[in-house]
Amino acid sequence: MVTKKFYFQGEHGAFSEEAGLKFFGKKAFGIPVKDFEDVVISVLKERNAYGILPIENSTIGSIHSNYDLLLKFNVFIVGEVNLIVKQHLIASKKSKISGIKKIISHPAALQQCQNFIKKLKNVKIEISYDTAGSVKLIKENGLNDTAAISSEISAKIYGMKILKKNIQDTNTNITRFILISNKSVKPKKNTKTSIVFTLRNFPGALFRALSVFALRDIDLTKIESRPIPDKPFEYYFYLDFRGSIHDIKSINALNNLQEISTFLKILGSYEEDLNQK
Amino acid sequence: MVTKKFYFQGEHGAFSEEAGLKFFGKKAFGIPVKDFEDVVISVLKERNAYGILPIENSTIGSIHSNYDLLLKFNVFIVGEVNLIVKQHLIASKKSKISGIKKIISHPAALQQCQNFIKKLKNVKIEISYDTAGSVKLIKENGLNDTAAISSEISAKIYGMKILKKNIQDTNTNITRFILISNKSVKPKKNTKTSIVFTLRNFPGALFRALSVFALRDIDLTKIESRPIPDKPFEYYFYLDFRGSIHDIKSINALNNLQEISTFLKILGSYEEDLNQK
Repeated sequence: MVTKKFYFQGEHGAFSEEAGLKFFGKKAFGIPVKDFEDVVISVLKERNAYGILPIENSTIGSIHSNYDLLLKFNVFIVGEVNLIVKQHLIASKKSKISGIKKIISHPAALQQCQNFIKKLKNVKIEISYDTAGSVKLIKENGLNDTAAISSEISAKIYGMKILKKNIQDTNTNITRFILISNKSVKPKKNTKTSIVFTLRNFPGALFRALSVFALRDIDLTKIESRPIPDKPFEYYFYLDFRGSIHDIKSINALNNLQEISTFLKILGSYEEDLNQK
Repeated sequence: MVTKKFYFQGEHGAFSEEAGLKFFGKKAFGIPVKDFEDVVISVLKERNAYGILPIENSTIGSIHSNYDLLLKFNVFIVGEVNLIVKQHLIASKKSKISGIKKIISHPAALQQCQNFIKKLKNVKIEISYDTAGSVKLIKENGLNDTAAISSEISAKIYGMKILKKNIQDTNTNITRFILISNKSVKPKKNTKTSIVFTLRNFPGALFRALSVFALRDIDLTKIESRPIPDKPFEYYFYLDFRGSIHDIKSINALNNLQEISTFLKILGSYEEDLNQK
């Protein structure tokens, strides 16, 4: 069997890499790239390559910029992973918590640990592009007065110490990641499909759109209206439903939706991750 | 006429203060407090006091933590303001762009200017709790090698220079702010109502909920499902519709929704801001 490889944003030890390994198993390997667009472009260039993107977080909400990438490029969602995100304060083995003068991490991680950070005095907060990358930076520069906020695995990878465990504001901080590929898949069980559409704006427009699912007893797992920049009173609707574009019921619903929508893109059908919702 | 006062998070010159002044007019005055919860608590303690909170941004999406405050405390939404957010690179009058070694700002502002920041070399990025507060800090400490990302008005207030205008990634970066009070209002025109509700989870549940609006030709302006932490497969639905809790049509719709929902909170009826949507 060919070893699976997947692209992810960040450095080794990133949550995206952890999510990819959870999906494919420990034998897969992750290739770090600089940003989310690089993940998509790398996937488009290569056969049998996968990419992993965070798409929503229970604290922060939907990551619109990654939805934008799914609209812009022709990639398919082929899987999903729900990951409980636990953040830790990590520093070199010589460091003590009382000696920490600066904390660095990705803005999302800093936002998830606001309560912890607020209580600190005389500690500077600096942002970086990556949680695990912050641990790597502290290691490479031999800094003893600086700590990173990052994953347990990143502490192990770079031989660092966890000064304080679980500093995130809530213990139910879950990020939903999606796997993307340039080839769609045909999921066998727990099927789920993600779509984006737009409608003409009139009272009851969304109700009519949802009827195509309700009349066929299709269960929705996500709905969100997002105002379209530059287009007053127009919205993208993000919708996930249980079913696959290979089922006749879902095909009929989507054909029906096509009739009444002004734009419809099917992002992919894949197996739902039923763990840790 | 009594001068209106409102609480906002941050320092003078913050976007929240700008939004408050846009709503009440130049003669109102804003009182800065430390965080969003302080805004709500200040409003609860005082008669005739208002507070202002950002609730969604066109780039970042809904601000769940502020929705959580609306669920936790008994305050009412009494108005809304859409503000086009323009970010500028601001430093002391002596500074030159080539001499800037560090940039400080709020994580949301840094996120909105990612493209600009990514192109910089050898510049450190540090987070603070406030955009305008970063300008104030640079001023107070007489720093010449540090710049802030903040509003035009904050540069004026603290007598600072704009090194580069409009560094935000998109020119349609709009934040929607809400005005809160401990007394509800009865809006006269362009009425809009915000609610949060939960449903039993079965196929067609949301469709049934939306029927209470569609059957009465009530227009929706926002719908979003948010997974409830700790409760698998349960969602909060955020919904805004055109109409007021003083109209018989809206009252009927909400009574109808009450019958089929497991939880319903009316956040308030207020006048819609039709500008800059």
